[in-house]
Amino acid sequence: MELNVYEQLKKTNTTKIVMLVMDGIGGLPFQSEKSTALERARTPNLDRLAAEAICGLHEPVGPGITPGSGPAHLALFGYDPLRYQVGRGVLAASGINFDLTSDDVAARGNFCTVDEKGIVTDRRAGRISTEKNAQLCELLGDIELPGVEVHVRPVKEHRFLLVLRGKDLCGAVSDTDPQETGARPLEAEATEPCGRKSAGLVNEFCRRAREILKDHHPANMALLRGFAKCPQWPSMSRVFGIRGAAIAGYPMYRGLAKLLGMEVRETGSSLEEEFATLSSSWSDYDFFYVHVKKTDSAGEDGNFAHKVDVIEQTDRYIPGIRELNPDVLLVTGDHSTPAAMKYHSWHPVPVLLWSRCCRPDAVAVFSEKACVNGGLGPRISATALLPLALANAERLEKFGA
Amino acid sequence: MELNVYEQLKKTNTTKIVMLVMDGIGGLPFQSEKSTALERARTPNLDRLAAEAICGLHEPVGPGITPGSGPAHLALFGYDPLRYQVGRGVLAASGINFDLTSDDVAARGNFCTVDEKGIVTDRRAGRISTEKNAQLCELLGDIELPGVEVHVRPVKEHRFLLVLRGKDLCGAVSDTDPQETGARPLEAEATEPCGRKSAGLVNEFCRRAREILKDHHPANMALLRGFAKCPQWPSMSRVFGIRGAAIAGYPMYRGLAKLLGMEVRETGSSLEEEFATLSSSWSDYDFFYVHVKKTDSAGEDGNFAHKVDVIEQTDRYIPGIRELNPDVLLVTGDHSTPAAMKYHSWHPVPVLLWSRCCRPDAVAVFSEKACVNGGLGPRISATALLPLALANAERLEKFGA
Repeated sequence: MELNVYEQLKKTNTTKIVMLVMDGIGGLPFQSEKSTALERARTPNLDRLAAEAICGLHEPVGPGITPGSGPAHLALFGYDPLRYQVGRGVLAASGINFDLTSDDVAARGNFCTVDEKGIVTDRRAGRISTEKNAQLCELLGDIELPGVEVHVRPVKEHRFLLVLRGKDLCGAVSDTDPQETGARPLEAEATEPCGRKSAGLVNEFCRRAREILKDHHPANMALLRGFAKCPQWPSMSRVFGIRGAAIAGYPMYRGLAKLLGMEVRETGSSLEEEFATLSSSWSDYDFFYVHVKKTDSAGEDGNFAHKVDVIEQTDRYIPGIRELNPDVLLVTGDHSTPAAMKYHSWHPVPVLLWSRCCRPDAVAVFSEKACVNGGLGPRISATALLPLALANAERLEKFGA
Repeated sequence: MELNVYEQLKKTNTTKIVMLVMDGIGGLPFQSEKSTALERARTPNLDRLAAEAICGLHEPVGPGITPGSGPAHLALFGYDPLRYQVGRGVLAASGINFDLTSDDVAARGNFCTVDEKGIVTDRRAGRISTEKNAQLCELLGDIELPGVEVHVRPVKEHRFLLVLRGKDLCGAVSDTDPQETGARPLEAEATEPCGRKSAGLVNEFCRRAREILKDHHPANMALLRGFAKCPQWPSMSRVFGIRGAAIAGYPMYRGLAKLLGMEVRETGSSLEEEFATLSSSWSDYDFFYVHVKKTDSAGEDGNFAHKVDVIEQTDRYIPGIRELNPDVLLVTGDHSTPAAMKYHSWHPVPVLLWSRCCRPDAVAVFSEKACVNGGLGPRISATALLPLALANAERLEKFGA
């Protein structure tokens, strides 16, 4: 569905929607277990909610497609992730709260190791410390390029952010990162005519970076990828008519929410801190995005027991959310991260949507297997969920006479 | 989903996928039977596989659309059959292993009967023998047209293939077959400007054909339809990164697979021969399309008992397939052919997808009724199945960061 359909139907109301996203919640049976982590976890509160809700599983991007966290979250916020693609450079900036202006081109950088012939031998420079990274970023930040400001910021370990700020810049520039060892760093090239000026500046930056870094082995060179300008997307407020609050401890999710015009609330990264922030923000917003990260981290670590534990911990906060008296409570994940795979996967993601007018189905357990037979179906597009939440919150007008 | 999304995500791997297509497998309760043929058949091996698999029903083209075998197979191979349309002429050529070049325009021909006024009285010339057909094709093959080669080949009974080979030909030519008796053969017309030259040649061919055939009653005229050039489609290898083997006894399916760049393996048309070919081809390919024809033929003949029998026979080969140790095993049909209707139908088609990471649902019987409650849902697009198989074979990269 095109966003402008909803934009034309949006309606003001005083209702409140909570979208609780347990990152990577979907899973698979693990080793000798017959159950997924969600099936194994004792979740009396989620199960009670499921019994009163309409349930199903959503597909974040499309059949068989394993989504990154960015596209998966865009879909949950109602934006088609195939159409709204965000460059790595922009996500890197979001992740460290670097505010991009409309004059900026951002890129994700890696410090790397090259040998005496200039060939990349380690794309991550032995994962140097974040402290060393910060020192090197200060050196690179002194590079002067004609007509543009150069900003270099450390991210974590070998990762950094490069921002060029100036007139007539464009993100249509190819990566200098060859994405493999045994190759030289690539020359940046314009992928569209508008990228020529930027590509020239990037190549000059890389030449200077090589000179500056040459005695800093193993971090004796830098690789750049994902050049992008900050996208000018319609905000959630404009499209859906909601004032959104993002409650997320991790930078990437905060950054993404900000790109869509949500207000990012100050919070910690523990469940306790996040749910306290939800309570304290309650009177000021219509839509609350609450992000639980550790279900995904546990999945990526292959730690089934820890994933079960995080789910059970989260379940204990459900009564507190309900006490806030939301009009709509939507619980899901952005994608699946089975501990059995230690990675994101394409598997559809359990979802429940509760409201006083949700039309409950027969599902009474919040699990992958039970949700297959829910009223939302086993493969609803993730982009349909926010519109459904809005309808349940009586925030969409009738279409047509 | 656009094919280029998958093309950009495809990943090399050593995993192997088997797609077993039981043509026309879907059905309806037959006469006093309460069951479909698939429900009636004893299929212990398919049922066991279903219990370990994710199941559902797929819709080959769209709601209510009864597909021909060509579009239905294209969808199973991941190609949107509304976008990738193949002319009958090209299918006719594929069906008899006539290799079309990029200079060729092909048409499906019928020998027919016309009366003394030139009006068609039988569009199939009393279904003349294939031997008679071959003699007449030799005569028509002697027709000389300016600047083009003329190839005429018998197919079966009254059906033949016409190929014009030369420069600047185009398939934008209307049929000469009026598709009814009581009418004259039509003049071919260009449906786009590029078809003018071809239309002129076709009309000249038809005039000569009428002279040559005039004393060969009942086959005293020829009708042509489905003019088309061989489509230049992206191959499955390019789009999905798989080296495919087609194991199909019947020519049409072999031809279609070839159009998509699969290698057609020499085989017979019995189940035994096809599964032996699967085994002997195992080390050389990534993707194996195995086609079982007789489920469809039995349905078209209204022979419920025979359809049950073919399904039971096929079931016995499942353990042998599993012994080959495929990473993904997908079992389905291209469309439904209920014996009760004696024809293809629009009804969704049972499908099961097994892999070590398929996330099994609660379905433990491979049948129309049971698959309704499967994790793939009761109406998944057929074009989603190959991408899902690729994901399960870990042959797709993550989308986005």
